Amino acid sequence: MVQTYKFSNAATDFYFNSSLKELGKIIDRKHTFFITDQHIFKAHEKKFKGLNTIVIPAGEEHKKQSTVDDIILKLIQSKADRKSVLVGVGGGVITDLTGYVASVYMRGIRFGFVPTTVLGLVDASIGGKNGIDVGVYKNMVGVIRQPSFILHDLALLQSLPQKEWQNGFAEVIKHACIKDAAMFKELEQHQLSDYQKNKTLLADLVRRNALIKIKVVQKDEFEKGDRRLLNFGHTIGHAIETQYALMHGEAVSIGMVYACDIAQQLKGFAGKERVRSLIAQYQLPTHINFDAAKVFEVLTMDKKRVQKEMNFVLLEKIGKGVVHPIPLKRLESIIKKLQ
Amino acid sequence: MVQTYKFSNAATDFYFNSSLKELGKIIDRKHTFFITDQHIFKAHEKKFKGLNTIVIPAGEEHKKQSTVDDIILKLIQSKADRKSVLVGVGGGVITDLTGYVASVYMRGIRFGFVPTTVLGLVDASIGGKNGIDVGVYKNMVGVIRQPSFILHDLALLQSLPQKEWQNGFAEVIKHACIKDAAMFKELEQHQLSDYQKNKTLLADLVRRNALIKIKVVQKDEFEKGDRRLLNFGHTIGHAIETQYALMHGEAVSIGMVYACDIAQQLKGFAGKERVRSLIAQYQLPTHINFDAAKVFEVLTMDKKRVQKEMNFVLLEKIGKGVVHPIPLKRLESIIKKLQ
Ligand SMILES: NC(=O)c1ccc[n+]([C@@H]2O[C@H](COP(=O)([O-])OP(=O)(O)OC[C@H]3O[C@@H](n4cnc5c(N)ncnc54)[C@H](O)[C@@H]3O)[C@@H](O)[C@H]2O)c1
Ligand SMILES: NC(=O)c1ccc[n+]([C@@H]2O[C@H](COP(=O)([O-])OP(=O)(O)OC[C@H]3O[C@@H](n4cnc5c(N)ncnc54)[C@H](O)[C@@H]3O)[C@@H](O)[C@H]2O)c1
Ligand SMILES: [Zn+2]
Ligand SMILES: [Zn+2]
Repeated sequence: MVQTYKFSNAATDFYFNSSLKELGKIIDRKHTFFITDQHIFKAHEKKFKGLNTIVIPAGEEHKKQSTVDDIILKLIQSKADRKSVLVGVGGGVITDLTGYVASVYMRGIRFGFVPTTVLGLVDASIGGKNGIDVGVYKNMVGVIRQPSFILHDLALLQSLPQKEWQNGFAEVIKHACIKDAAMFKELEQHQLSDYQKNKTLLADLVRRNALIKIKVVQKDEFEKGDRRLLNFGHTIGHAIETQYALMHGEAVSIGMVYACDIAQQLKGFAGKERVRSLIAQYQLPTHINFDAAKVFEVLTMDKKRVQKEMNFVLLEKIGKGVVHPIPLKRLESIIKKLQ
Repeated sequence: MVQTYKFSNAATDFYFNSSLKELGKIIDRKHTFFITDQHIFKAHEKKFKGLNTIVIPAGEEHKKQSTVDDIILKLIQSKADRKSVLVGVGGGVITDLTGYVASVYMRGIRFGFVPTTVLGLVDASIGGKNGIDVGVYKNMVGVIRQPSFILHDLALLQSLPQKEWQNGFAEVIKHACIKDAAMFKELEQHQLSDYQKNKTLLADLVRRNALIKIKVVQKDEFEKGDRRLLNFGHTIGHAIETQYALMHGEAVSIGMVYACDIAQQLKGFAGKERVRSLIAQYQLPTHINFDAAKVFEVLTMDKKRVQKEMNFVLLEKIGKGVVHPIPLKRLESIIKKLQ
């Protein structure tokens, strides 16, 4: 069953708890190009039979311009035109790349996503942000443009490595922290393996999280207000992610604990211990020894910086995130004391 | 004096017949990055004093991804952020590149143009199309996004080579053909040198042509109807431009004559000789010996192709362009007989 959500310039059709087989009803195979990575292609090769498929190497290090160039050359060689549709089947790397290529190829063609990671399902595929990294600067280049559709096929998760499951749950915990105290409690009462075994439990959780993100984006597509809440744990998270070769979810988990620490200092937030132990319960790290000066330096190149202060996401209580501007000088001294 | 024209998602402020010195009132120098090419920079070096300027090599062959990559690296090094503004000072190559970089850097920052060629003033700077070439495929990658402002300083044209003046007048003649029979007559009564000597005559012509393009784009920003009229002379034009190393205006001039020929065949258009002689009067070519098979092959990769037919712009009479779909098979045989 399709549910359509409207954004300011476009609408996206969501097919929750659906199946790849349903895709035939949405798109015309002849004019469609599937983009996926080698891991997903290997694990599900049969499902791509008879489809125009562009397979790229897996990993964040390929989310860069030269991969975009390669895909564009393949599209040109295959005579893809303005009527063509791109479908990204993969995690956030694939959907970010696919959305970006589709947004610039011939000044924009249609595209849709089939997210294959927990992170992709609840976060990366939703909201229209796409793009690539430039060196250490994540998502430095891109545009905002909504996919025409997003289709969920949870059976694809069967091949997802355990590490990636954990990774995705960092964003689920993030959503609970900033928006949904009841879901925070539900998570406290379960283990990751419960969601891996129980399809209904997982489907409900995925949809609930997708809806949290959809609603935040609908309110604030161009990131002037509420959407910034989604950066909870991400400011410090991004700064340590590339430097310490952490997975995104690990970096965000650590970033959330530090953000709770800052929230405690600046807002009297009382839930830091609950957040920390929920993160640990889902097998995610809560601490790292980092080089504060280096982290601060990378922070100041963060897109979220506007002039002399940085908008930092803190918690007032569990389930209620707030955006709080912190002067850069102040932030520097706080970060240096965090360790 | 500023005049604002609204497009579907944005508005552009036009400063007609103004001066570079007025820029200080529009933008804040500290947060602004000027992008120009070596020819313009050399001819007007003093005017760039004290401004953050990125100078790129001149020429269409640099309108490509690697130049975009270079500009983006410079912006990162200069800590350009979301508050930064890019201003393209140059011909269509510079404004296309500047608009594209600004549209993707940090998912979109503000930008404006100071066009320095006739073609830039009356055509390339207007309408929000931007982008780059991929190999022989012109404008294969890009987005549609309107500049915040366009400022005209006709004094910059003093250094414009004679060839480029002629080049730009091809678009002026195009506008006359598709939209303005009165302007067609005015052009018949003058020489290029009249416009080069008489500033008022030139300023009036530039504004009149800018308004033609603005109105067409306002009616049809995303190129589903009227905007396609601007492709008059461009379909065959583009196909011969790269192959025979013609200037854009030369290729379009030849393309317009061939389009008149096809219009005569399919629509009984009677003005072919007047169009041909006006083009010659402005020192532009009206014919070339081309390889029809090769031209047709390139045509079929043209963005304007939709499935089995091509929308071709023809003239019903001088001052009235129309879009006419021609089946590819038919077009192939017409083109092979054009010589
Ligand atoms: N656009 C947004 O709003 C947004 C939001 C959050 C994150 N992101 C981006 O998302 C990316 C991270 O996404 P991700 O964690 O999904 O990374 P990913 O796409 O790299 O996937 C993680 C790994 O899992 C593999 N994989 C994916 N699905 C699989 C499956 N079903 N079976 C087997 N292997 C599978 C991949 O090959 C890869 O090795 C980052 O680039 C980040 O910037 C974007
Ligand atoms: N975006 C659009 O809607 C649109 C429309 C038409 C054309 N275009 C693009 O515009 C480009 C062609 O534009 P163009 O003809 O202006 O080319 P251009 O920018 O290459 O300029 C032509 C030449 O003149 C030089 N020059 C420019 N201004 C000068 C000045 N004042 N003094 C001395 N030298 C000067 C340049 O260095 C260059 O060598 C093409 O890439 C085409 O695709 C875009
Ligand atoms: Zn994240
Ligand atoms: Zn042109």
